[in-house]
Amino acid sequence: QGTRDHHPAHVVLRDRLLATAVACFKRHGAAPLDTPVLELRETLVGQYGEGAKLIYELQDQGGELLALRYDLTVPFARYLAMNKVTNMKRYQVAKVYRRDNPATTRGRYREFYQCDFDIAGQFDPMIPDAECLKVMHEILSDLQLGDFIIKVNHRLVLNGVFAVCGVPESKFITMCSTVDKLDKMAWEEVRSEMVAEKELSPEAADHIGDYVRLQGGLELIEQLLQDPKLSQNKLAKEGLGDMKLLFEYLTLFGITGKIRFDLSLARGLDYYTGVIYEAVLLQQERQPGEEPLGVGSVAGGGRYDGLVGMFDPKGRRVPCVGVSIGIERIFSILQRRLQASGEKIRVTETQVLVVTPHRHLLPARLKLISELWDSGIKAEMLYKKDPKLLKQLQYCEDTGIPLAAIVGEQELAGGVVKLRDVRTRKEVRM
Amino acid sequence: QGTRDHHPAHVVLRDRLLATAVACFKRHGAAPLDTPVLELRETLVGQYGEGAKLIYELQDQGGELLALRYDLTVPFARYLAMNKVTNMKRYQVAKVYRRDNPATTRGRYREFYQCDFDIAGQFDPMIPDAECLKVMHEILSDLQLGDFIIKVNHRLVLNGVFAVCGVPESKFITMCSTVDKLDKMAWEEVRSEMVAEKELSPEAADHIGDYVRLQGGLELIEQLLQDPKLSQNKLAKEGLGDMKLLFEYLTLFGITGKIRFDLSLARGLDYYTGVIYEAVLLQQERQPGEEPLGVGSVAGGGRYDGLVGMFDPKGRRVPCVGVSIGIERIFSILQRRLQASGEKIRVTETQVLVVTPHRHLLPARLKLISELWDSGIKAEMLYKKDPKLLKQLQYCEDTGIPLAAIVGEQELAGGVVKLRDVRTRKEVRM
Repeated sequence: QGTRDHHPAHVVLRDRLLATAVACFKRHGAAPLDTPVLELRETLVGQYGEGAKLIYELQDQGGELLALRYDLTVPFARYLAMNKVTNMKRYQVAKVYRRDNPATTRGRYREFYQCDFDIAGQFDPMIPDAECLKVMHEILSDLQLGDFIIKVNHRLVLNGVFAVCGVPESKFITMCSTVDKLDKMAWEEVRSEMVAEKELSPEAADHIGDYVRLQGGLELIEQLLQDPKLSQNKLAKEGLGDMKLLFEYLTLFGITGKIRFDLSLARGLDYYTGVIYEAVLLQQERQPGEEPLGVGSVAGGGRYDGLVGMFDPKGRRVPCVGVSIGIERIFSILQRRLQASGEKIRVTETQVLVVTPHRHLLPARLKLISELWDSGIKAEMLYKKDPKLLKQLQYCEDTGIPLAAIVGEQELAGGVVKLRDVRTRKEVRM
Repeated sequence: QGTRDHHPAHVVLRDRLLATAVACFKRHGAAPLDTPVLELRETLVGQYGEGAKLIYELQDQGGELLALRYDLTVPFARYLAMNKVTNMKRYQVAKVYRRDNPATTRGRYREFYQCDFDIAGQFDPMIPDAECLKVMHEILSDLQLGDFIIKVNHRLVLNGVFAVCGVPESKFITMCSTVDKLDKMAWEEVRSEMVAEKELSPEAADHIGDYVRLQGGLELIEQLLQDPKLSQNKLAKEGLGDMKLLFEYLTLFGITGKIRFDLSLARGLDYYTGVIYEAVLLQQERQPGEEPLGVGSVAGGGRYDGLVGMFDPKGRRVPCVGVSIGIERIFSILQRRLQASGEKIRVTETQVLVVTPHRHLLPARLKLISELWDSGIKAEMLYKKDPKLLKQLQYCEDTGIPLAAIVGEQELAGGVVKLRDVRTRKEVRM
């Protein structure tokens, strides 16, 4: 339940998509990493807030207590700590596992791919953060998914907002989860969660509401830096300083047109400590009468400076920032687009079918195909001793093989092959 | 325990190796398939004989009882039955899981890659079987692992041998496991297992011993077809007929030089029904003083005509034949060879480092690198505001980046870039 077999056409389409992402990661100098599907349970527990109940646990069959990885970020942090790596730019494309309620029509599965790029190391501020946003921008542009916007916020700015609105520090993280719901719920609902569940005063909630509904660009950063309350708060000031520097670098990258400082963006995960971001598509393609795909966010990430230290016995910190591309959601979009276009994906790359028009020519076919394979040519033949010519040509049509190499008795006698273009039916002897 | 992180250098080397195998699979017209890591427990139970105890089971967290896949063959058969596919040539490269005693120095892990190519469908005899052997031959040749031999046998020949030696049919499968140990144990030991554990008479065991120590080529097939006892046995006759046809096709492929009919080859798995084969390297590279790698078999497979039917509610059979490339063992060999050669693997593909020789030029670096990325050039820069020139050039040397694009104040004023070949130190302005 919630898993699926990826048929060949799926794999081919997904590989195209992944190739675009991986090409971008390599363009940015990232190295590949591959970690086990299995992690120690204790590595995963406590990292995912409310997500913890979705972790797949293995049976205790004697030995270590294991679980399936929930994402690629925690294994990356565990890897850095375990190997005392203090500096690494890595990418990883792999499956992760969550015992969630599957919503397969909306592309939500219990086994799904993640596609992550992360920069670990102590560097001058905001340079790697800006590169992560550039990576997101490049991939979404390269995939031609249509118009998109990247929302950016900063956990310290949010914390500063909470502080000046009178929220106690112990509630910062849970307030982030509540604010994070603003992209799916109306402000009124979020407000009542704040008051009823999180026990905030109505005034504090309203005050927060005034801030978290702000969005804009560099001018908003400047405005908030002048805000009488925020400008007095250490957290907010530091966060806004970071944001200003980030926008400066993004301007040099020429991508601010698609970047929006959005104070309602909070991201669900506990481990973020700095800049956070999320890309959303602005137009969702939809056929008349079809259900909306509910695509929403197609990429996201942020800075997590504390996670690696949690896995190091001495608590040594390795600051990290990263981005995760929402492969499954993007796949749903590309698949729908493909269906709409009527394009048929070829699942094999065969260039030529070796064909015999007469009986008793299997040896000739086997000899010729062997020569083709040995020359690096992608070739197939039917696994029949004496297949009909029409059946063989039909197979080319069905599977998109462009050429047929025909060896009849005449060709065999003359030491030649008749090469037929399946589409045009043009033939040449060679 | 028994799992490992694949460091970037591992991944790069392994990807080279897999690319060779996948290129061959595509050359033979195979389509990619991807199945879940999770299977229903009931799918796996009863397929692996003594291997069953090595299956990783997931905890019962409510819902289905799940396990991690043990190989790629059973999921492929389950896929064919579930989707009523009667005809498919597929490849799959993925991790499988076995709670075995890990022997990591010998390349035996609990999580490891398999790399499989299989042909499913009802076809004229031995044509797909011959292609599987051709695929093995091509991959082992392409990987340049040194000299190898592919042992071939046939389950029906083995069963015929057992029958004429007086073994009851109910013991055929367990006898296969015993015979299979001949590549690791002396005949005397195997014989005593037959007599003591499998309750065979010493005469029957000796009789079997006379057969299973035979090996050869087409002449051995002919000889056995004349054997007074075997020629009277239906199973043996059918198997030897298949073998004769197979050798005819392999002769047309021109690969019989590395193929050996070996009656001691039995393969451990229960599901084989026809031709079976296994490739072994003849020379193992070994440094003086080093432990032997114990590499042995590097690829294997066979025909399994009954497996798909076990997953079909109506028991519909889909004959299959396939080959599995022993990626992990081959990887150990390639890794050792690489270490011996002293070649350093580059883990990134970065073509150019963007460098500034003076202070306050971070904006110039960001602008230039952004242009390079947008032009598809693989580029990096140091994440420092004002890095020292020497540090930047040192980074090129350390990571193998061949070019440095240098922007100093002079270049900036002139609207040019100084491109430096890191190895030769030659510079051009452009």
